[in-house]
Amino acid sequence: MPKNRNISMAVIRRLPKYNRCLKDLLDKEIYRISSKELSVILGFTASQIRQDLNNFGGFGQQGYGYNVEELYHEIQKILGLTRDYKAVVVGVGNLGQAIANHTNFEEHGFKILAMFDINPTLIGLQIRGTPVLDNKELRGFIKANDIEIGVITTPVQVAQSVADELVEAGIKAIWNFAPMDLKVPDDVVVEDVHLNESLFIMSYLIKEKALLKSLEEPEDKK
Amino acid sequence: MPKNRNISMAVIRRLPKYNRCLKDLLDKEIYRISSKELSVILGFTASQIRQDLNNFGGFGQQGYGYNVEELYHEIQKILGLTRDYKAVVVGVGNLGQAIANHTNFEEHGFKILAMFDINPTLIGLQIRGTPVLDNKELRGFIKANDIEIGVITTPVQVAQSVADELVEAGIKAIWNFAPMDLKVPDDVVVEDVHLNESLFIMSYLIKEKALLKSLEEPEDKK
Repeated sequence: MPKNRNISMAVIRRLPKYNRCLKDLLDKEIYRISSKELSVILGFTASQIRQDLNNFGGFGQQGYGYNVEELYHEIQKILGLTRDYKAVVVGVGNLGQAIANHTNFEEHGFKILAMFDINPTLIGLQIRGTPVLDNKELRGFIKANDIEIGVITTPVQVAQSVADELVEAGIKAIWNFAPMDLKVPDDVVVEDVHLNESLFIMSYLIKEKALLKSLEEPEDKK
Repeated sequence: MPKNRNISMAVIRRLPKYNRCLKDLLDKEIYRISSKELSVILGFTASQIRQDLNNFGGFGQQGYGYNVEELYHEIQKILGLTRDYKAVVVGVGNLGQAIANHTNFEEHGFKILAMFDINPTLIGLQIRGTPVLDNKELRGFIKANDIEIGVITTPVQVAQSVADELVEAGIKAIWNFAPMDLKVPDDVVVEDVHLNESLFIMSYLIKEKALLKSLEEPEDKK
């Protein structure tokens, strides 16, 4: 059995932060770091960091710290970032275009081979070299090109039917930007980006900070 | 002291899902629901739901369930969604435009009063009625209009300096789309949308599903 069975998603969701931090260190030519130093950069406690990284085997050495390069490559492997992924985007609005224009994704191995829409004025265009095709061609394109990832940036009203089509065509994962919970078979991954939810968390935090501030103010100022 | 002190962020981060679910129920004219029924819709256990909602006082009644309308309004209050927020967007690329075009945000009370960029071909344009102004006017605009939220959709290279400017102008919260951790004073809220991190979680999940599948396959098929 591989080591990383039964690791909680809370740990997994912290890994991209480690990944980014280690990449920054390598860019700065820092090759060795202690959990204490990592703690300062990441804002997690040193013990949290040691615990997180122990899940994946013992990369740290007492009195030496972590080998940044080794740790970075290990986390890349764990996150599945050591190979390329072929993707399509469905829905060529601003959000779909923002994703197609995000060169960064391609650097990490996520290649968008085509975008799909129903709007005839968009079909036939190229966005940063990526063709916009007719939704009708979606299924055939996915099968012919072994596409693994479908990005849904359509209006919410059609998101489930697009998801159904992606699943039927044999997609492995859906990156869903529509503000709804898609219904898909168990063997299909769905990763949601729910912008509304993030916005509501922000308004909660604004409210809480204001409340704290009002509690902290001296009585005579009230 | 208000009831909702010391509630873990894990609970808070689930509230937008309750909020959306309850809104859907109201739209369907369903006014009463049990934690068991909520559990089926939300995919959390009924005991998790009761525990979550107990944090905010006892909205449920034995043998009756929850009053959907009451619970919805209570969650709206907790999330700080019972009032409007004034926002500006800095960075008028595709992502900035996608956010300005997202009518849904406005429905929830988040009003984008202006967008800012340094690109002279964009300055002076209107996006869905929202003016694009020169970055130089950012500070003055925030002060003059009591803007509370700054949305950062600029390239990562300038994100920190934009954040500094927003903070100096007196912003309360930053919705940050740049793939970095901004440094801001303690009294400023930062809510990050790190698309890369979401993408890496997806590649992790794809890898894990493939691994599970290979383990499940009968030996003679390998």
